[in-house]
Amino acid sequence: MNNAVKKKGVQSIAFQNPPVITNWASMVGPMEGQGPYGNEFDWVLEDYLFGEETWEKAEAKMLRETVKMVVGKANLQLDSIEVLLAGDLLNQIISANFAARELKIPFLGLYGACSTMAEGMALGAMLIDGGFYHTLAVGVTSHHYTAERQFRFPTEQGTQRVPSAQWTVTGCGALIMQAQGSGPRVTAATVGKVVDLGQSDVNDMGGAMAPAAADTIVTHFKDMGRTPDYYDLVITGDLGKYGMALLESLCVKFDYPLGKRLTDCGVIIYDPRQDAHAGGSGCGCSAAMFCGPFLNRMANRQYNKLLLVATGALMSPTTSFQGESIPCIAHAVAVEN
Amino acid sequence: MNNAVKKKGVQSIAFQNPPVITNWASMVGPMEGQGPYGNEFDWVLEDYLFGEETWEKAEAKMLRETVKMVVGKANLQLDSIEVLLAGDLLNQIISANFAARELKIPFLGLYGACSTMAEGMALGAMLIDGGFYHTLAVGVTSHHYTAERQFRFPTEQGTQRVPSAQWTVTGCGALIMQAQGSGPRVTAATVGKVVDLGQSDVNDMGGAMAPAAADTIVTHFKDMGRTPDYYDLVITGDLGKYGMALLESLCVKFDYPLGKRLTDCGVIIYDPRQDAHAGGSGCGCSAAMFCGPFLNRMANRQYNKLLLVATGALMSPTTSFQGESIPCIAHAVAVEN
Repeated sequence: MNNAVKKKGVQSIAFQNPPVITNWASMVGPMEGQGPYGNEFDWVLEDYLFGEETWEKAEAKMLRETVKMVVGKANLQLDSIEVLLAGDLLNQIISANFAARELKIPFLGLYGACSTMAEGMALGAMLIDGGFYHTLAVGVTSHHYTAERQFRFPTEQGTQRVPSAQWTVTGCGALIMQAQGSGPRVTAATVGKVVDLGQSDVNDMGGAMAPAAADTIVTHFKDMGRTPDYYDLVITGDLGKYGMALLESLCVKFDYPLGKRLTDCGVIIYDPRQDAHAGGSGCGCSAAMFCGPFLNRMANRQYNKLLLVATGALMSPTTSFQGESIPCIAHAVAVEN
Repeated sequence: MNNAVKKKGVQSIAFQNPPVITNWASMVGPMEGQGPYGNEFDWVLEDYLFGEETWEKAEAKMLRETVKMVVGKANLQLDSIEVLLAGDLLNQIISANFAARELKIPFLGLYGACSTMAEGMALGAMLIDGGFYHTLAVGVTSHHYTAERQFRFPTEQGTQRVPSAQWTVTGCGALIMQAQGSGPRVTAATVGKVVDLGQSDVNDMGGAMAPAAADTIVTHFKDMGRTPDYYDLVITGDLGKYGMALLESLCVKFDYPLGKRLTDCGVIIYDPRQDAHAGGSGCGCSAAMFCGPFLNRMANRQYNKLLLVATGALMSPTTSFQGESIPCIAHAVAVEN
């Protein structure tokens, strides 16, 4: 697999001309701004409405403004971006759709729940390495209050949360991927399979997603002939503290112990004193953390090889009401200096 | 653009080694089975539950069984399919997610409303032509009664429909795309931009989508240096009769009159006596029609050059309640013998 394209029967892809992440930008809400990485995001919102009338309109604006921000950082114009790969958690991915309306960039809508950033990066890298686009953008957003009222309870109800519950992050990340330029490169990708071990507790999504993460991580290592020490960090999307512990024990079982190389965006985005229970979740969690603190640390060479493994729980309230368990997925992208 | 990859600043892509659609399969509901093309689909369901307890579970089964059917036609095993690109209309694309769970194929979830079949085919063709996969599947489904209760009214309410309303098709289409083999080829694709002229009437989605279709079609012709007579047919997804008339007038205005070359899956899938008002809609409409009657007619050389332009209305009930107009998109794929 060294610098060869995907072999038949192998799930992972190694890019021949690894696409470059030339620019990235992140935006988070007030609570994330008070967390341990608060001063490392490009834009911390003062409130959850962002000057709009509704949370949903605020979420679409977050994606729109984060894409504009990353295009500005790149000294490009919006019409230089040849295609936008984007998604979010809302029904019919309205945040991405309405952002794409304002941005006027050819648009491919994705839905991978909280795995969407990695899905977009994997697809984006294929579209660049395949020669179909020279410059594209990937953007993903989530908003605590839009997700809360869509997936859970009316916010005003103040429902008590169980310890294994996670807190949907208000956050957005966007990056520009190009065929040429300077910056970290996407060297490989592993598109995940749906894994469902029968867990149906929507208050423990990290536990449901951990087996999918383990499946993709172990597959990635086997396909690429790598061991965990190849990477500085393996960064899962948002398993939370219980899901992360389960993932670690699964990887030990499969003889790929991750140890201190494993970190989880959901676990680290909040300070334990912030009362986020098991940690953050939402596709904006890994998007903002990766397009903020992690890529910043790659730029200053604190890290040189990262494996982002964004995880998604693919159920809906309807399927849970109908007694279904939670199908989960994880996609991995290797990013290297 | 002749057999060259995409040039900078050009929205359309011409594939260097056009991927082959080696097999296709279609499944429809009882009403579609009674329509003019009823005997040209592979599988007509006897009822809307398909042996399941809920319409949602039936819809996921439709996608799962249609993918199995196309894999069987190809004399392949499920594990020969390297990746599945799939989507549907339901919140969190649960039909695709749950089908992917059973199929155990690496999975990339898409959301493009009724444009999803063309979105999947465009992306799939890039992934094959780029050398990342040798064999992949694209599958898209919709179900009248899951869509009705999610987007509109409880079915039991029997709400009267206005003449411009469309009827969501119960239908599914899936195809296998390969780097080599015999069959029609995907020669070009145009990924659309979101177009929104301010129309907010959810009972006239065809009228909302027509400008997006016109934008993509005219862009495709200009990029590729083609005129309408290049194609045997330009097949829109599901504009319905009013949207199709509007599209034709827009194309005349832009000097690309389509005339009798224009047809619309939503207009032709039902007989006027079937009381479907303006015609069919739903992402399964263009998916079933293209993976059934149209590809069958390419196989017997009745048609040799088709342009599929699947159109999507990218709003949600939430955005409509919040006073938003309807952002729309259309993606085009050229399929040629």
